[in-house]
Amino acid sequence: MNKSVHIYSPATVANVGPGFDILGFALDQPGDEMLVEKTEGDQHIIIDESGTGLPLDPFRNVATVAIDAMLDDLGSSQKFHLTFLKKIAPGSGIGSSAASSAGAVYGANQLLGSPYTNLELVPFAMKGEKTASGSAHADNVAPALLGGFVLVRSYDPLDIVSIPGPEGLYCCIVYPEISIATEDSRKILKTTVPLEKAIAQCGNVAGLVTGLITGDFRLISNSMQDVIAEPIRSFLIPEYDEVKKAALEAGALGCSISGSGPSIFALSENEDTAQKAGKQMEKVFASAEIGSSVFVSRVNKQGIKILSEES
Amino acid sequence: MNKSVHIYSPATVANVGPGFDILGFALDQPGDEMLVEKTEGDQHIIIDESGTGLPLDPFRNVATVAIDAMLDDLGSSQKFHLTFLKKIAPGSGIGSSAASSAGAVYGANQLLGSPYTNLELVPFAMKGEKTASGSAHADNVAPALLGGFVLVRSYDPLDIVSIPGPEGLYCCIVYPEISIATEDSRKILKTTVPLEKAIAQCGNVAGLVTGLITGDFRLISNSMQDVIAEPIRSFLIPEYDEVKKAALEAGALGCSISGSGPSIFALSENEDTAQKAGKQMEKVFASAEIGSSVFVSRVNKQGIKILSEES
Repeated sequence: MNKSVHIYSPATVANVGPGFDILGFALDQPGDEMLVEKTEGDQHIIIDESGTGLPLDPFRNVATVAIDAMLDDLGSSQKFHLTFLKKIAPGSGIGSSAASSAGAVYGANQLLGSPYTNLELVPFAMKGEKTASGSAHADNVAPALLGGFVLVRSYDPLDIVSIPGPEGLYCCIVYPEISIATEDSRKILKTTVPLEKAIAQCGNVAGLVTGLITGDFRLISNSMQDVIAEPIRSFLIPEYDEVKKAALEAGALGCSISGSGPSIFALSENEDTAQKAGKQMEKVFASAEIGSSVFVSRVNKQGIKILSEES
Repeated sequence: MNKSVHIYSPATVANVGPGFDILGFALDQPGDEMLVEKTEGDQHIIIDESGTGLPLDPFRNVATVAIDAMLDDLGSSQKFHLTFLKKIAPGSGIGSSAASSAGAVYGANQLLGSPYTNLELVPFAMKGEKTASGSAHADNVAPALLGGFVLVRSYDPLDIVSIPGPEGLYCCIVYPEISIATEDSRKILKTTVPLEKAIAQCGNVAGLVTGLITGDFRLISNSMQDVIAEPIRSFLIPEYDEVKKAALEAGALGCSISGSGPSIFALSENEDTAQKAGKQMEKVFASAEIGSSVFVSRVNKQGIKILSEES
């Protein structure tokens, strides 16, 4: 069995339009690199400077909480040494903590001879997520582990469904230099929804998955409407309406808040349109004197991958 | 061009589990027969005795209201004579009025040389539906016209999406001899929904259409949960919980209220299971001294069809 594994753990977009809390997908870029090593000594974590501020305490770090949940289930006392090269900024809304927790259990599982499938790793990674955001969401960790689009059909019991997506779908992410705490962004949501909005959301999410499976870009575009979270959460992101308008005018199929923000994602039929949308979105933020980072990426169908291993 | 057309207009199931207000499908059985004839005289309607109680007044009958909406749009003054052989009991919850209004516009459109596609006929048939139920729903008329499963992705603008369903899917309908007015059954619904229920409904409806498209019977079964309408509307149907339990124990994939009831439908992977489910459901009603009719039918992929035409 190998002693160490060097992995790539991708960023993910959760709350995909009408798929609030239940639909996410994985990106090619950006992504974290992680070195997971078996150790005879104590479990410990090293995080590079890009992750400054993340907890190194194993009881508070999402990665070690996730690994410990897996080891508990397995009845193993193996210890690991984790080294992170964080490229996904914490708090950016594109699954930074999910990449860490999913990557950690993926790497540890590899080094233990893969007792679990990637799907079986989801609940352990969710425990890590809970440490970061206060609730055990699956719509970032599941696409990080499985790749592509993933539907969380139900949380109780947990039912994770991979949704085949069309070839050629690109995503552009624009991450403005502002910060939103995931917990705040959840608290501002209303606890009840008008019946007609619930029905509209159901229609759109059913349309979106149908469009993804059948490769109907027009249907994907028409269905990219979130009537529950976006109208409220978008208030937390300055220039949101203008940025979204710019993405759609550049030809994007749809545009919405990634996770709980502040990143905004736009889906496009091809890379060229995704690049154009990204540029126009960045421009709107720039004109309001808000700096932003842009990532253009194909939807990642593989999820976490091994870069190298050492035995 | 033909002078008359004899058509078969099938029953339909709306509110398919989590697809409340947005998902319906067509049945092979039962269905109405209709004779639509061009006439030089006044528009008039003859309804056989099975439809006793339905309005013959052209301003109140769903069929003539629907035809008139189509003729208005077309700018035609053609009159039609409609003869109904109603086999779908009005008020049974399996699209009796939809079969009439969709059948009427389908027949009239045929006799005018098909200026409209079946999809384009949906809004006219919806106007008929509005006459019957007070609101212009599409989840019965669209599957009647298009066959198979149909998603009403959005009502404004109207967006109708055919959902490819798996081969071999059977439905059993049990229609108990009790009556529920569609309007009452709508009024008892709450006007707001807890956020977590809206999310659960979204997850299930996305799972259901995914299961239908990919032919995943287990996913169809797991997704057949309506947390919004069924818990409230089932109070209007005596023995509902027991009937549903009997269907599932007989091997049905899922069971819910058809439309606004009182009919109950159960989906099954094959005809044998559908027959068994129907028998067990009927038994539960019988043990409570409620008579019921049972229909076992393949999901109808064609929709309304022509039996014969005369030129």
